[in-house]
Amino acid sequence: MRKGEATKQTILDEAIIAARFSGLSGLTIGSLADRTGLSKSGLYAHFRSKEALQLETMARHRDQFIAEVVRPALGRPRGEQRLRELLRLWILWYQHPGGCLFLASATEFDDITGPLHDQMVADEQDLMESLTQVLGTLVTAGDIVPDADCGQLAQEVFGILLAYNWMSRILRDPRAEDRAWVAFDRLIDSLRPTTS
Amino acid sequence: MRKGEATKQTILDEAIIAARFSGLSGLTIGSLADRTGLSKSGLYAHFRSKEALQLETMARHRDQFIAEVVRPALGRPRGEQRLRELLRLWILWYQHPGGCLFLASATEFDDITGPLHDQMVADEQDLMESLTQVLGTLVTAGDIVPDADCGQLAQEVFGILLAYNWMSRILRDPRAEDRAWVAFDRLIDSLRPTTS
Repeated sequence: MRKGEATKQTILDEAIIAARFSGLSGLTIGSLADRTGLSKSGLYAHFRSKEALQLETMARHRDQFIAEVVRPALGRPRGEQRLRELLRLWILWYQHPGGCLFLASATEFDDITGPLHDQMVADEQDLMESLTQVLGTLVTAGDIVPDADCGQLAQEVFGILLAYNWMSRILRDPRAEDRAWVAFDRLIDSLRPTTS
Repeated sequence: MRKGEATKQTILDEAIIAARFSGLSGLTIGSLADRTGLSKSGLYAHFRSKEALQLETMARHRDQFIAEVVRPALGRPRGEQRLRELLRLWILWYQHPGGCLFLASATEFDDITGPLHDQMVADEQDLMESLTQVLGTLVTAGDIVPDADCGQLAQEVFGILLAYNWMSRILRDPRAEDRAWVAFDRLIDSLRPTTS
């Protein structure tokens, strides 16, 4: 990795930490200059505009999610083990101070048009596709019934994750994580093939 | 209702419509003056500060939710009918153009301290309590097993609602509402008393 690229990634990591609290809308070249100790002109050499900075921060955040959540889960055997690991890591992901930028950017960019909206939607689609694919491995592994509707299940599992995040982050309910697992077990158990 | 009070509520209704798109953080006396055709000084007579405007907008939004969702549901017989009506109306509520301010304000105010954060949390607690209470009527009506954990179920039902909102609003998935009802039926069916 060239030095310029390494510097840029360090800047983006700081941008993610800041944006988790302020939202991507609150991310400015000026505040990032304060955080990193770099000059504003130095930052402008890396990002030509606030929007470019926001888009590159989103890309780096997506890469972090893949590295911290998706890829380790894919290292587990296909089927229920893989899905459980995905959920465990996804719950840890939601525990990052300041919260998840996928969730924040959905609120920030759902009512606008342009590259930020389009990138947000593309990211959310990728999330749901990753989840749907892992659910598909439960079907092929025989962990759940062969006619399970993985799109349906992806929406339900995502609901379990969203509710966990909500109860934990907003209401600081210490039962939120246990309840997420109870909900998950209920869902999976309702779909187990009957042994005959 | 005095004329001044009626004017104030009209202003707050406009504030809600604006905030559904811009967030409560994006709500300003200036932009509201443009929307309502009132002077900024006229608006300052009603709201001494941006924060006062935001807090009163939250209160009016909460009243709207009670009037559109909670109260009509409470008009239904206790038990499953009431819960189904609550969900049906809650889903309609999420279809308001610009979306739900409870969700937006959670993202906006979760990482700050002060009256806006505290009011947001109080509102979200009220939401969950309303949902938990209606779930309790399913227990007393015998629609679900007597030892059902209504706090657990409230988190699960809220997850169904959050996932519906997400799939529908962000990903524009036309299957989102049907899938929410499939998830709800699965949950309730798993808790029905066994007839013996």
